[in-house]
This record gives sequence, C-alpha cells and structure tokens, in this order.
Amino acid sequence: MIKDAVELVIRNAIVITADRDRRVITDGGVAVSQGRIVAVGTAAELAPWESGAARVLDASGMILMPGLINTHCHAGDSLFRGLVEDLPLEAWLQTVWKAEGAILNAETSYLGTVLGFAEQLLTGVTTVMDMFWYPHETVRAARALGMRVSTGGIFFDPPGVNGHTPERRIAEAERFFADFSGADDVFAAVMPHGAYTVSPDTLKGARRITDSHGGLYSIHAAETRAEQADIQARYGRSVIRHLDAHGLLDQRTVLAHCVHLDDEEIAIVARTRAVVSHNPVSNLKLGSGIARIPDMLAAGVRVTLGTDGAISGNDLDMWLALRLAAMLHKGANEKADAVATHQALDMLTRDAADALGAGATIGSLETGKLADMVLVDASRAHAVPMFDPVTHLVYSAGKSDVRHVFLAGEQVVADGRLTRVDLDETLAAVRALTPKIAASIA
Amino acid sequence: MIKDAVELVIRNAIVITADRDRRVITDGGVAVSQGRIVAVGTAAELAPWESGAARVLDASGMILMPGLINTHCHAGDSLFRGLVEDLPLEAWLQTVWKAEGAILNAETSYLGTVLGFAEQLLTGVTTVMDMFWYPHETVRAARALGMRVSTGGIFFDPPGVNGHTPERRIAEAERFFADFSGADDVFAAVMPHGAYTVSPDTLKGARRITDSHGGLYSIHAAETRAEQADIQARYGRSVIRHLDAHGLLDQRTVLAHCVHLDDEEIAIVARTRAVVSHNPVSNLKLGSGIARIPDMLAAGVRVTLGTDGAISGNDLDMWLALRLAAMLHKGANEKADAVATHQALDMLTRDAADALGAGATIGSLETGKLADMVLVDASRAHAVPMFDPVTHLVYSAGKSDVRHVFLAGEQVVADGRLTRVDLDETLAAVRALTPKIAASIA
Repeated sequence: MIKDAVELVIRNAIVITADRDRRVITDGGVAVSQGRIVAVGTAAELAPWESGAARVLDASGMILMPGLINTHCHAGDSLFRGLVEDLPLEAWLQTVWKAEGAILNAETSYLGTVLGFAEQLLTGVTTVMDMFWYPHETVRAARALGMRVSTGGIFFDPPGVNGHTPERRIAEAERFFADFSGADDVFAAVMPHGAYTVSPDTLKGARRITDSHGGLYSIHAAETRAEQADIQARYGRSVIRHLDAHGLLDQRTVLAHCVHLDDEEIAIVARTRAVVSHNPVSNLKLGSGIARIPDMLAAGVRVTLGTDGAISGNDLDMWLALRLAAMLHKGANEKADAVATHQALDMLTRDAADALGAGATIGSLETGKLADMVLVDASRAHAVPMFDPVTHLVYSAGKSDVRHVFLAGEQVVADGRLTRVDLDETLAAVRALTPKIAASIA
Repeated sequence: MIKDAVELVIRNAIVITADRDRRVITDGGVAVSQGRIVAVGTAAELAPWESGAARVLDASGMILMPGLINTHCHAGDSLFRGLVEDLPLEAWLQTVWKAEGAILNAETSYLGTVLGFAEQLLTGVTTVMDMFWYPHETVRAARALGMRVSTGGIFFDPPGVNGHTPERRIAEAERFFADFSGADDVFAAVMPHGAYTVSPDTLKGARRITDSHGGLYSIHAAETRAEQADIQARYGRSVIRHLDAHGLLDQRTVLAHCVHLDDEEIAIVARTRAVVSHNPVSNLKLGSGIARIPDMLAAGVRVTLGTDGAISGNDLDMWLALRLAAMLHKGANEKADAVATHQALDMLTRDAADALGAGATIGSLETGKLADMVLVDASRAHAVPMFDPVTHLVYSAGKSDVRHVFLAGEQVVADGRLTRVDLDETLAAVRALTPKIAASIA
C-alpha cells in the first residue's frame, strides 16, 4: 500500500469504530483503498494519507460509524406496508399470505425488495439478512442498490406464494449456493420459515444443504405463545428444544424473534451459540410480546437486531430497533441499566457481523475491513449538547440523520439520496401496483 | 368573510382533520384568514377561495394535519441531554438537580428552552405544556419561535434551582396569571412538582391560585413504585388517592406519567376527568415501567402524550411517543388491538387540546379554529404504498417528515428550517456552555 494511492479519506469526524475496544476518536477518520479501510485514526494519523487521496471528505459535524446490519427482514413485504392492521400474528399471517399469493411473482418481489432495501440503505443499513420467496431477486435488488445481503432458499411446507414443490425448493436452495458461494456481498443461507410451517424432515434437509456449503440457517422461532403451544402439542416439547433435538442450533443459526423462551431455552440458545435476532417493533405491534433480552444477555446469548418486514412495522427503521433494544427492557423490567448503551450499539454493528460469519470483513471500522460506513449528521437540534456520541446514537439520533453511506468505499447514498437507483421510479412503480394490492384482500 | 381576502390556501393535500368524525379528505386543504381556518374541504370546495388568496401552497404529496400538542415537557432540560445515564428516577433526579443548580438561571433557562422548543417545532409540535424554573422565560422562548405554551409558577418545597421561598413562589405564580391570563398563546397553569416534593398545604395553596383564575394544574404523579411507596408511607394512601382526598383532581388537572395505578386509582382519575400525560419514552428509559394505558382507555380516562425532558429521552420526539402509545401496549399486553390507531392520533391532537382547555381553538382542522398546521412529506420510501394516511402517520411517519409548520397561519417552519430564530446561533450558545455543564456533575 502506498499512501498516495488511496481513493478516499474521511476526516474531522467523530469516529465510532465499534471495534472490540469500543474505541471512539473525537476528531479523526479513515483512509480507504480498493474498497478496504487502510487506516483509522486521529487527524494527525490520517494526515499522511490525505495529500494523494483521490477524494478527501470533510466530515465536520458528523459521526462516522460502521454500516448498520439488520439480521431479520422481509424487504419485499414493503409492498404490503399498512395493509393489514390490528391483528395478532396468526390471523395477520393468513391475510398477509393471501395478499402475497395474489401479488408476488419474481418481478413484484424484486420491486418490493428494492423498495424495502432502498428505505434501509437511506438510513445507513448496508447489510440485511432477508427471507423472501425469490432469493435470486433479493440478491439482484441488493446489488442494484449497492448493499450486502444474506439470503437463500426458503422452506415452507404449504405451497406458499410460488407453489413450489419440496423437491424444487431443495434444488433452488442448492442452486443459490452454487451461484453465490464465495461472493463478498452475499452471505448464503437456507431459510426454513419456522417449526410450525416446516416439518422436522425438511428442517433437517435444509440443514444438510447449508452444512455442506458452510452457510447460514435462518428461521423464525418462538415468536408467539400460540406458536409455542402449537409446537408443544405437535412434538411434545417447546420450539427451542425441538430445534435443538434435531441438531439445528449452532453458531450459524439465526433465530428470529425468540419472544417466548423459558430459562432452559435461553440456556440452550446460549450453549449452542445460536444467534437471536431481536425485532422489538414487530413484536410490539403484532402483540407478540417482549423478548427477555436482559436475561439472554446475562446468559451469554448472542443478540442482534432486526426490523422484520414493513407489513408489521410499518417502516424498516433500525434506529428505532436500536433505541428500543436499549430502552424497552429498562421499562419492561423496571431496571434503568437493563441493557447497556454500548451493548445495544454492538447488536447492530460488530455482533451482527459476527452473526453472519462476516466479523472479519464488516461490522466495525478497522484496518483491513471493507469500508461499509455511515456518516450521521450531528449538527441538528437534537444532537446538541453531546456529552457522549454513543449515547447520542442510541437515544437521540434517528434515521433521518444519515447523510452519506458507503459500501466498500463506494458512496451509495449522498446527502440523503441514492446514487445508483432512481427512487422516484421505484415509488412510481409501487404506486401503480397499489390498487391491485389493496384489492388482493378485499 | 369575503372569499377574496384570505391570506393562505393550502391545496392538494391529504387532510387529516382530527375532528370528532375523524374526517379524512384525500385531496383537499384549508383556507386561512386572520390566523383562523375559514374553510376545510375538497379541492372543489376550496376553489372559490384560491383566486384572491395572498398565497396558494400546493401540498401535493403531503399530509396536512393539526399541530402536535405535547402535554408534558421540561424543554430547558435539553441543556442536560445525555448527561446522566442508566440511573433509576430517584438517583437520576439527585444528579439532575445538581446539574440544574449549577447551571440554571433565567438566561440559561431561556437558552435551554429555545433549544428544546426549536427541536419540537421542527417536528410539528405547536403547543407544549412545559414545567420549568423560570416560566416567564418559557413564555419568552415560545413567543420567540412562534409556539403556544402552557406553563406557570412551579412549586417545590426544597429551595430548588432558584432558591425561592414558598412565599415568593406563590407571588410568582400569581404574577404569571396576571401577566398572561387571556392570551391565546399561553395557557396559564400552576405546576407543583409532585406529591413527594410538595406538602399537602402547598399543593392546596397552588390549587387556590389556579382555581381563582380558571387555569390548569400540572403535577407529576405515580411515576415510579418508589414514589408510590413514599407517599403511602408518609400519608397512608397512594398518590392518586392522596391528590383526590385534597380535592386536586378535576378536568383542569394534568397528571404526568401515572405509570403505577391500581384499578381504583384508574377509576378515580376517570371519575374526576383529570388528564393523564403518557410519557412512554421517559418511562421506558428511566426504568419507571409501562403505564396501563389500555386499562385507562377502557375506564374512560383522558389520555394525552408527552415527551418529558430531553434529559430522560434523549430527544423530544412526539412521533416516537405517538408510535409507542399505539404499539407498546399491544406488546406489553400481548393484544394486537390494545390501542386503536386513531385513538393514538387523537391523544396528540384533539384530546390534548381539550386537556389544555383549548379544544375550541386548537387540536383539529375545523372552520373557526386557529390555523396551527403541519405539512408532512408523504413522498419518501417509507410512505409508499399508503393504504391509510392515519396508519401511516402513527406507524411509519417520523419527525424528519415534517416540512412546514404554521402557527395561526404564520409559517414558523419552512422546508425544515425555523423562520423566526437562527437555530445555529442557539446551538453555538449551547455548545459554548457545554464544558461548564459537563463539569457541573464532575
């Protein structure tokens, strides 16, 4: 590396590295070369990199942090945002599936996913774990915008939206790995929907696919009391015990929700190193309940954050997920230090990268990592005074404070606008589809 | 009224009137003359007003709604935003009071209140009930920005920030009414801090002042279990019973928080027509608990919304209060219809205006009312598709979507910027004070 060949230097920022030491640099930045961070440091440390840099960005009044990572989403469901309201999960799902069945094909899935990913990218999310019906379209959408994605073949015993047979689902899941294994912007996974919608044999079949490729395994788990009761009645044990008994829990498993776990289930999740994706907005709005996050953290469970789909949100706001992760459990447990501020920030940066098996390349601002970065405006009324930038990010900053977003050093959001995709075209296409969506559940 | 003399017509908006019929106009607007709404209607109904209007604002792609009303705030505490973290209310208050004592005087209270009010006005809040140490400065700040305020003399048995004697507090509370009674931008009140910081005699003395002037009575009540235990130990009954026994509850009383009420206390609040200001963000972050809002609504309690101060927030975001009012109780009660969407919206519009005794003049878009109005951008990714604008406002819109704000027809926020006050000057003054604030608790 020669210091006069870097493509980008960002300077004069407050830098939240989110590294293992939780280092904060009050006046500093990064240097980026070939998409990777080659230096993180103070103004003095960066000075040698600046003179030959292709671009020097003065980030005065801004906070530089790693791109946010969302570990549970169904971005394509943004097409149905606000369509089905005030129903509990089970009744709600029946209506959602009716709408999905009427509307979704490869093309509309792509459209909805671009919408959902665009909304998130504008808020600083650079990586999303996304479960949806057409995973190749999900990758296409992420690549169009300039984002990383973890996705893969979905498993769902009923015919589902696309009516695929179990054999076809297996073939497609295999094909997904064939097509995307080794890509640094796709973290390939299998995505069985849940223990209540997928038989044990299929859950295990999906597992064999991902095991043979070293991929991730994402599944809804213990979202509601009704789900727990259903699995208990069918299999004589609770959801987490059921998954554990079939050997489905390890460090590559991402369990979405985990709202209703007993103490032993929490211990099982901790022991197996499975990851929980906490989705507080969805869990509150659908009346699912409040996950026992402080107990999970105390037990050593790996907790990350997700938005779930916009149909249960109704937006896709990781900043709200962050604030709720830090604040909801203080209130629900009547304990003002229930989740530490820095712990909440870890959940959507470094810990989430580790959850996707990508801790070596993303999730923090460190030399050698990919330059996935966000610049947050810290000059607005709600950012003043600022005694601690981490406290500010968790309890006061919000999605609209995100000004610039970089993926591997490429600027994919500039001053609040996407650089690669014409958002207005996407919104116009969604609006054109809206009457048909409304009619789908009429 | 002659139709060619109006000062402002807003057209092509989605209009959320927040009137008693919860009327929504999908393509319409308002006409404004001398600060009051003279017409609300469809495009066709507004057409006659347009030709002679001094200004016609095309609100295509925007939602027009009444200005938001915050019924519990300490805006001046924005100076201490993020200063004291991860402590429960009682320990937290001791530190807050130390900082307040070192920093606050009339001048700094004004500065902090401008900061806190500016933040809110930019998010569409046009009226705030605010409890702080220098109520005349609070009014001065509101008038500088162009906002309405409910405030008045504070009662607090310890010396407090300004060290005033009880006699001086009474004289100041009286003077406040003398100075501001009858103003349409000030809803005069007395503001005893709480049953645990103010003796029964002083609580009653404060009541006599407001009774003689027909003003409001605002007090913290039942915020924590510790407060309930303290009052029980001192007076042999719970907070609400204590206030009721002294005749302090009626339709002009605004009770901030009410997190810990038993069934009988809920019935007392309902019977007396006292108003609850629900402050979900503060209650969660300080670990105070989750108020029984669905039970209160079922009992007929008048519920409104507040932010509390930014020191317990850490921002002043009524949109977050709104979303939590609609969503937190669904999760906490595992009931997906626990608080209806439209009910949540009423809490910060019409019901809040009624709570301040101002239901005849603000809180909805109706002919004859003051033109306190907000235009919300509905063209962003998270606003598409939109099946129901009320659902959108409650579950997807946020503070950064507010583009224009009007107070009595005067535009006080234009494209996200204050029109009357130079925010940068305020922020610079706060930044200059920040080292001293940080040192105040060192």
